[in-house]
Amino acid sequence: MRIDLNADLGETTAGNPVSDDRAMLEIISSANVACGFHAGDAHSIARTLELAARCGVSVGAHVAYRDAPGFGRRFMDYAPAELADEILYQIGALEALAASRGTSVRYVKPHGALYNAIVHHEAQAQAVVDALVAHGGELALVTLPGSVVGAKAADAGIEVVREAFADRAYTPEGTLVSRRTPGAVIHEPEVVAQRVLQMAQDGVVEAVDGSRVAVDAQTVCVHGDSPGAVQMARAIADLLRRSGVEIASFR
Amino acid sequence: MRIDLNADLGETTAGNPVSDDRAMLEIISSANVACGFHAGDAHSIARTLELAARCGVSVGAHVAYRDAPGFGRRFMDYAPAELADEILYQIGALEALAASRGTSVRYVKPHGALYNAIVHHEAQAQAVVDALVAHGGELALVTLPGSVVGAKAADAGIEVVREAFADRAYTPEGTLVSRRTPGAVIHEPEVVAQRVLQMAQDGVVEAVDGSRVAVDAQTVCVHGDSPGAVQMARAIADLLRRSGVEIASFR
Amino acid sequence: MRIDLNADLGETTAGNPVSDDRAMLEIISSANVACGFHAGDAHSIARTLELAARCGVSVGAHVAYRDAPGFGRRFMDYAPAELADEILYQIGALEALAASRGTSVRYVKPHGALYNAIVHHEAQAQAVVDALVAHGGELALVTLPGSVVGAKAADAGIEVVREAFADRAYTPEGTLVSRRTPGAVIHEPEVVAQRVLQMAQDGVVEAVDGSRVAVDAQTVCVHGDSPGAVQMARAIADLLRRSGVEIASFR
Amino acid sequence: MRIDLNADLGETTAGNPVSDDRAMLEIISSANVACGFHAGDAHSIARTLELAARCGVSVGAHVAYRDAPGFGRRFMDYAPAELADEILYQIGALEALAASRGTSVRYVKPHGALYNAIVHHEAQAQAVVDALVAHGGELALVTLPGSVVGAKAADAGIEVVREAFADRAYTPEGTLVSRRTPGAVIHEPEVVAQRVLQMAQDGVVEAVDGSRVAVDAQTVCVHGDSPGAVQMARAIADLLRRSGVEIASFR
Repeated sequence: MRIDLNADLGETTAGNPVSDDRAMLEIISSANVACGFHAGDAHSIARTLELAARCGVSVGAHVAYRDAPGFGRRFMDYAPAELADEILYQIGALEALAASRGTSVRYVKPHGALYNAIVHHEAQAQAVVDALVAHGGELALVTLPGSVVGAKAADAGIEVVREAFADRAYTPEGTLVSRRTPGAVIHEPEVVAQRVLQMAQDGVVEAVDGSRVAVDAQTVCVHGDSPGAVQMARAIADLLRRSGVEIASFR
Repeated sequence: MRIDLNADLGETTAGNPVSDDRAMLEIISSANVACGFHAGDAHSIARTLELAARCGVSVGAHVAYRDAPGFGRRFMDYAPAELADEILYQIGALEALAASRGTSVRYVKPHGALYNAIVHHEAQAQAVVDALVAHGGELALVTLPGSVVGAKAADAGIEVVREAFADRAYTPEGTLVSRRTPGAVIHEPEVVAQRVLQMAQDGVVEAVDGSRVAVDAQTVCVHGDSPGAVQMARAIADLLRRSGVEIASFR
Repeated sequence: MRIDLNADLGETTAGNPVSDDRAMLEIISSANVACGFHAGDAHSIARTLELAARCGVSVGAHVAYRDAPGFGRRFMDYAPAELADEILYQIGALEALAASRGTSVRYVKPHGALYNAIVHHEAQAQAVVDALVAHGGELALVTLPGSVVGAKAADAGIEVVREAFADRAYTPEGTLVSRRTPGAVIHEPEVVAQRVLQMAQDGVVEAVDGSRVAVDAQTVCVHGDSPGAVQMARAIADLLRRSGVEIASFR
Repeated sequence: MRIDLNADLGETTAGNPVSDDRAMLEIISSANVACGFHAGDAHSIARTLELAARCGVSVGAHVAYRDAPGFGRRFMDYAPAELADEILYQIGALEALAASRGTSVRYVKPHGALYNAIVHHEAQAQAVVDALVAHGGELALVTLPGSVVGAKAADAGIEVVREAFADRAYTPEGTLVSRRTPGAVIHEPEVVAQRVLQMAQDGVVEAVDGSRVAVDAQTVCVHGDSPGAVQMARAIADLLRRSGVEIASFR
């Protein structure tokens, strides 16, 4: 029994690190590394890649809208062909830095508003898939189960990796509770760890109404950028290992 | 007898093209393509790459300081390790776009203030060479004859391509007359074409004092971004061909 | 009888001017000056302001989304409070530059995707009005007749200036024909001049189906950034003057 | 007996606050507020201004080179006229936000590499003074005693405010020990507090060689952006008050 733990790293903005990448890389198995559009400058990204290489952690391109001031959290109405090339640009930039640090890019995980948009936005979802195909079709795509982009990627022969969120509340339908709803984010490390264990062992999670819903995830996102992030990630990893679940990248 | 003609292309800024890339690519043999730092967004860059591929024109990465508002024309005092990674980032971004359009990056030509700085700035010159070595050492570097970066690159086993400028006045010492000096730029297409022919055939150019100085160039830069640029480039190419000089990339 | 002619100026990007500001300022009565978010750096903006002051042309703040790579042409899903402050920021920046050049900001005209969004987007329209109120309520707002932002601004006591477009085709309902429709933009200077004259004299324009629709505009936008822009603006201004229509700012 | 304590605030980058502005504003008397060029988006800046207004803290424009990815820490070789307008732009932007929050800009403190450059760089120092004069000459300038920009500003009739640094080691000549030298930054709150008290009471500080050097400062910079920053600022403020030194803005 195994599961992948992923986290968003390399998000230094203007010299100010957002997460403790060194500590997180000792815990997780996949690092979604910023590509400079929502955060990260080339050198801070490269340092994160170097640490990831040393820790044997899988590297993904955390591609985003070109919106550093907004940290990639605002939907932008890109022309699809422009969006596809912006994604290719980011993947290539990260690949060159990764190669120089002895590692390589294995997958793509869209960030922030782009991640959310392509769950349902047909044209932008197609643009992301077009970029992956134009790149050669070898990189996997991390996305929510049931997303439009996941279906399109699978149709195009792209490997799709289903993602769950460690500290987010789920509706009885298996979707995420909106962040604007109280209780949408769970803060107790033990509770979160227990939920991840259940996802890994039984493929289910307790929804907000107490029902159990299927969460068929291959990778679980743990946050790297909040106070207590490292402590929570450790609590999750410790419980998984004690329970005999191996933490390993999907790739 | 052959010579390479290069020009700076892909420099669309905010949707406004700076040069007529389609026309220039019918004339030149090497295209220095913007990488998004001083100009160019991913999609406009990709369109230029597509045209370059169709025209069989060699592609170089026109890497720059991260200064789009200043078009890369202002010296920036980068930490060398940061500069090296910024250059790797740009090369990688352009490579991914180039591959998606059926071509590849063959060389690097630094842009603007960076080009000028590394003629003499030891630490930044070393950073550029470090980036080329970290990238694998396969890309050539276009620079001024006698530059610090050229010497360092040669020491590191990088192929160095010596560049001359079609429309710039030269001092008797073989260096460029400063742009601030009247007469630094030559505007008559016939005069410029004649000078390029002399560079190609005899390896010399007439300096401002009337003396002939050696200009041992493998590639000659023609401007793509001024009014009349296409007309001047055509005048140069026509005279070269009529005189039996082949226009072909150094790679 | 009088009408205002406005144009978008100061849109230099990366040192490359988009329009011939000097020539346009001899013709128009109101200049929508870029504020650095979609185009313009401080110094090129200031030069345009200096020319506007000399020509006695009214200055407006051409506020935009923070999207220089996209020239402000992509909708961005800003939080309204963030958008309001971004607009205040731009107005203030332009005011300081204007004051240093002996002129002042009289009105605000949103640019590109923001202009289009607030015709119908309630929250962003409110954000723009909030910014104008927070600024003191003294600046006028240029917008399409019938827009949501116009109604909200009027409710808040802001002077609303109704705008028409010189070279755009109109539907029988008095709205603009989408740019994606063939014939949406009219290119013949004489035809465009005749339409503007009719707008000024009779308050009507011929729609695409040949019917006459009311266009009750106080200001007419002429483009500054296309080839032939100056020639077209001159044709309009000449016909207006010959026909006894004064070209004068609404402020 | 009184002294001003200033700190750099409003430096949120990509939604990630760098300092605890709310806590710092309870302690200091002058806030150097980021203007969006090295850090800060309009809304986060405005929130800091609102808190400053509530706390009765004086507001200064923390103007910088346009280099958000580098946090304004890299020297940039601006043309002086361009730099002057960039500074005017930032002051104006901050003024509009400040006015909307019931406060106003009282002084200018250049940030990072610009602060350091104009201690000796004649042309850039003149550009800063030109901007202050163009703005009306009413804002004060915070700078190092003995700086080129201070002399030029005084000549131009600008009020110059001499600054010392709470936690920096001084040479026997009264200049700052370079950050690259071990011991350049002092980390013990009690030691730092004692030094500030001595600056305020006696106008002297102990240099690295044990000698006492004159530090005739009207304002002392305390850091807001390091771990323990709030604790150190409190230690300084507590000792000053216990010792009968009033903490009050120079304006």
